Parts: sequence; structure tokens; C-alpha cells
Amino acid sequence: MVYADNAATTKLDKDALAAMLPWLQDEYGNASQPYSFARKPKKALTDARATIAACIGAEPEEIYFTSGGTESDNWAIKGLIEPNDKHQTITSQIEHHAVLNACNALERLGYPVVYLPVDSQGVVLSDSLSKAITEKTKLVSVMMVNNEIGTIEPIKELATIAHTHNVLFHTDAVQAVGHIPIDVNELGIDMLSSSAHKFNGPKGIGFLYIRKGTQIRPLADGGAQEFHMRAGTENIASIVGMAVALKKNCRTMQETSTKLQAMDHAFIDVLHEANVDFIRNGSVSKSPGIISVSIRNISGEMLLHRLDLKGISISTGSACDSVNTQVSHVIKAIGVPSAYAQGTIRISFGHDNQIEDAVEIAHAIAKILQT
Amino acid sequence: MVYADNAATTKLDKDALAAMLPWLQDEYGNASQPYSFARKPKKALTDARATIAACIGAEPEEIYFTSGGTESDNWAIKGLIEPNDKHQTITSQIEHHAVLNACNALERLGYPVVYLPVDSQGVVLSDSLSKAITEKTKLVSVMMVNNEIGTIEPIKELATIAHTHNVLFHTDAVQAVGHIPIDVNELGIDMLSSSAHKFNGPKGIGFLYIRKGTQIRPLADGGAQEFHMRAGTENIASIVGMAVALKKNCRTMQETSTKLQAMDHAFIDVLHEANVDFIRNGSVSKSPGIISVSIRNISGEMLLHRLDLKGISISTGSACDSVNTQVSHVIKAIGVPSAYAQGTIRISFGHDNQIEDAVEIAHAIAKILQT
Repeated sequence: MVYADNAATTKLDKDALAAMLPWLQDEYGNASQPYSFARKPKKALTDARATIAACIGAEPEEIYFTSGGTESDNWAIKGLIEPNDKHQTITSQIEHHAVLNACNALERLGYPVVYLPVDSQGVVLSDSLSKAITEKTKLVSVMMVNNEIGTIEPIKELATIAHTHNVLFHTDAVQAVGHIPIDVNELGIDMLSSSAHKFNGPKGIGFLYIRKGTQIRPLADGGAQEFHMRAGTENIASIVGMAVALKKNCRTMQETSTKLQAMDHAFIDVLHEANVDFIRNGSVSKSPGIISVSIRNISGEMLLHRLDLKGISISTGSACDSVNTQVSHVIKAIGVPSAYAQGTIRISFGHDNQIEDAVEIAHAIAKILQT
Repeated sequence: MVYADNAATTKLDKDALAAMLPWLQDEYGNASQPYSFARKPKKALTDARATIAACIGAEPEEIYFTSGGTESDNWAIKGLIEPNDKHQTITSQIEHHAVLNACNALERLGYPVVYLPVDSQGVVLSDSLSKAITEKTKLVSVMMVNNEIGTIEPIKELATIAHTHNVLFHTDAVQAVGHIPIDVNELGIDMLSSSAHKFNGPKGIGFLYIRKGTQIRPLADGGAQEFHMRAGTENIASIVGMAVALKKNCRTMQETSTKLQAMDHAFIDVLHEANVDFIRNGSVSKSPGIISVSIRNISGEMLLHRLDLKGISISTGSACDSVNTQVSHVIKAIGVPSAYAQGTIRISFGHDNQIEDAVEIAHAIAKILQT
């Protein structure tokens, strides 16, 4: 099997799993209880928080554990609601559905949202942000790396504009954390969403970075966990697994990135050599593991299934949209010509892939197109 | 070590862990993707949903996986918000903080909430519910088993009253699922919250039962998972672990219950024999594993720490309130006399406990009180 859908989910790192096991076995104590049996999980929680904070240049107390990227996005967006102040939110047209649908929910409650367009490379233009900001704007939410085409957004530039107008800046960094270098202070980020299973951590766990002093309400109200900001018994095993996976990914990031770029080139080279008529999506500044191509006059879905028969797993649009066979909102927003749009596929490589996988997939595609 | 705080969290069942491992190792595919590698996790998801549904008399499509009891409670309560209809919610004064604080959040947004009192056994009286319902009432939320004193609420009676007025009935069944028999149809429940780690499943996973046809919005907006109602990549390993643990607990429920009742009697008998001056909290109809006693003129916190030094883990108030040393909202609501209230402790037994543990703890308490 060749698995090339790492933007949908990744394999859990072996060291991360090994680190999780004690907390799934004998060390099952509730970290919030005041007796000795809670001491080890409490320490594990503190250590994991510090490890994760260090990976993005944050303070430990700025990391709030959640159930994943979707919860983090929903929290950052919905946590700003105040009953008598119908503030405005600005986001982009190419966000993940966790952001888009959370914004739709705000609109339903009477809170206006502006969806910024992007250029043909999927980049949010700073001019359009400047023009959209009003006195009612409270939040700008733009993703760090697009999950379908890999484009890295100009976060620092956009955050600076937001801050000039005293507006908060959130980024859905689900495809970025563990993949590209991030320093929340250098970039000027107020809130950042992350999901462990996108960087070889376990599913069902993630975090929201919230800059100290940011005024936000909980999404999950209840107990006093996570500094009274996110209730629910701490999922120690998964939190520990996430920290181990992230630390490891950050340590090997440069090396992995070089390897992924070589795979990217090899893949594209084979398609060119085979005279496949395709458009490369995304910008020059992109996440190294994500490759999006739109191939002329074919169905991406057909291609996915033919590749599946050869034991190759790839994606057509975004993972969360797989029920839907329409052209994705991202491909529409970047204006891929209609002859190519339906033939869009996403190949996303990870740790376990080798350059041979890239060559094999490209050859398999070329062969399918010839028959 | 004697662990007697199973209402705070339980040890993960060995079979549940074994069932989780494949999904934490080679079968890591994203269940929502359309290729072969997603087939096994998709099937595991379907099977787990059916297993869990069967345990509470529901249909599989009525089970929505969440990150735990807190998320489920927040969803059931906040999911009913409509912008131009400030509906009323009715709950009780002795709910878990996940319900109470979710209700507080509703109030902050201008949605009124009524908190029903309870009698001295912690029972919500149906008369008080009948009187509180108005034309604006949309939801009644009363817990099935109280987490501090174990009282089983008259769910069927309360749900019937709610339905007579066309009002939805939700129950926080976090301390009930896997512990006492539940049939959502027999009881007339519209929504039911559950958390896996309270019945020997993993932490960070739970579910919300939502009766077919119930009008509710998502709390976590985003992808199409969970029938478009709860977004986020499915946490297959934990979902599978939850299903295995629940099925096992339900199968051995009667046997476990008998054993826990014997432990309860043994514990109380030793306290009586040692002439400890205490009040037993809760009603005759209570969850078999939870024992709450208020001991005259002592500090529950002191007792907890002295027991901890002897290797015994128990609780004073509710787990989520452990930061707080004040008398809990539940102990206040049932009107425990002030000479006893501060001396309230909760002992909660589970699978791994034996009758010797009950005797040992009671003797340890008696000894501490004598010195």
C-alpha cells in the first residue's frame, strides 16, 4: 500500500504511542484530583503543555487542550460572542469547513461575516483585508496552510493589519503545526488552532493557543480544567502522545521538508515526462507535503478509485468534503478553469513515504490516463 | 493502593485497550475518506455505534460521538439556541458543572434558566418542575445519577411532565451509563449525555444520544462527520474502546451492582460499629457505587489527605470542584447541617474494588477520627 493522504490523517508515531500507554494502563488517575494518585498525570499534563508551547514559541499557560482542530476553530470564532455587540468577523473563502461553518453559525445568530477572496495561487491579499475591516470588526481568521492546495498565507502581514485596527488575529494552523516553523510572537498571532493527528499524534486531541490577555469565553463550559477555560477530564494519554509527536516532528522538520520537496519535484517531473495536461495549484510558498494538481478532462473521483485499486490512497478535495463530488470551494475560489477543475487531486506525503512512492503514484496516474 | 474514586475516573478496561490498539497502529485511516484504507475504520465506527445504541435501547443513528460528557452536555443545552427566540431552560440545582455552567452561559446571552431545588435526598420533585414550565420552556435537563451523592432522579416522571408540555427532556447520564439499566424509550429521554472514562472506557470520548427528529444545531461546526452534526475526524480508537467497555459493563451490570451494594453495606457497618457520628447522603434509590457521608465536626479535606497518606484515594466533593474547598453546591442544596457539611466525603467503588477495600477505608477513617 502507498498511503499519500497525510493531510487527511497521519500514522501515529511509535514513540508517541509508547508514551501514551502508561496513561492507558496503570496511571489512570484524574489529573484534577487532590491526592497522590493524581500527581503523575498532573505532571505529565504540565510537561506536555510546556513541550507544545516551546514548539510554537508560546508560554505554557497559553496552550489549551481541546479535542482537535474543529473544536479549536469553533472556540476561537464562537468564543468572542457577546450578547449586545454584534461584532464582525473576517475570514477567507478558502478556509477549512471548521472555520467556514463556525462563521455560518455566527451569521445565523446575527453576527456579520466577510469572506475574503484569494488570488489564483490561493493567497489572501492584504489590501482586501484592509478594506474589509470596520469599527465592528473583532476577529480576522485566516488559515496558515491551506489543506487542499498547500498555500502558505502571509500570516505576519495579515496579523499586522488586524492589529493596526485593534482586531484579534486567529489562524487555523492545522496543516502547519509540525510541518513549517511557527513562532506566534514573530508572526503576531493571537489564537492558533492545531490538531495532533495531522502531525503523527493521536486523533481526538488538539489545542488552541490563546495569547495571554485575549478576551474570550469558553466553548465547553463546566469544570475548572485548563485554567477554567476548557472543561472536561483531561485526556492525559492523548495529550502526552501529541506532545511527543510534535516535539519529534519539529526536531526533524528541516530534514523532512527537504525530503518532501524532492518527492514533490519527482512527482511533477514524471507527470511532465508523461505529457499529462495539468495545472499545478497553490503558491510557490507552500507546505512541502501537499501537492494539488488539476488534470484536464478527467474526473478526480475516477482517478482516486482507479489508484485505490492499485493500492494507492490519495484525495480529491478536502478530507471533510469527501461525501461531496462537486468541485471544492477552494478550487472554485482560485479559479481553476472548468476543463481542469473536475480533475483535481491532492497527494499529501508524510514521514513514511519515500521518493519511490512519488514516482510510483505519478506513473500510475499517467498509465490510467493513457488507458 | 486502594482507589475509591471511580466517580472521578475509572481504570481503562484491558479488553477495551486491546481493541483500541490496531487503530493506534496500522489501521490509522481517516474513516471519512472514500478509499479502501478507510473501509475498516468506517466499519469499526458503524459497529461501535450499534453496540452503544443497543446498550441504551436507542437506534444507531441516534448516537453522536463527542469528546466526553462536558461536550455532550454543552451541546444538548447550547444547541437549542435560536437568535430570535429567547427560550427558557429548566434544570436542577444539583447538576454537574458542565450543565450548570452551560446554563450560566445561556443566561449571559439572555436566555432564562430556572434551577429547581431538590429535597433532602437530592430528588427533584415533579411538582416543582410542573410549576416552573412556561410557554417559553424548550428544554428540561435533569441528571440521571448525581455524581456527588449517587441519587437516581425520577427521570421517567420528569420526562413525562416535560413531554406533556411539548418540552424536550435531556439527561446528563455520565454517572449512569454502564452503571444502571437505561432504556431511552422506556424513560422518554430526548437527549442523553455520556462519558466513556466513567465506565472503564478511555478519557476524551463520549456520546450524545439525540432522539430522531429532535431539532438541534451542532456545537462543533465543520466537516460532514456524525451525520453532519458533530464535525472533526473520527477518533476511532477511543470510540471502539468506549463500545467494548460499555458492552462489558452492561453485561456484568447486575453482578457488579450486587457486589457494590455489599461493599456499601460493609463500609457503613464499620462506621456504625466505630461509633462515627455521620449522616448518609443521597436517596434510597441510588447508584450502587457512590457513597457520600458527612461526618460531624471534621474537615473532609483533612480526611482526604490523611487517607491519601495511607494510600487510599477518595474525594471530598465533585471531582471538577477539587480546587475549591467550600461546601459543594450539592451538599448545600440537600441541606446537610453545618456541623456535618464540611466533613463530607465521597467514596466511589468500581470493578477493581473488593469488599476488603470498603472495610479497610472505613477502618482507616475511624482510626483517623480517634486520633
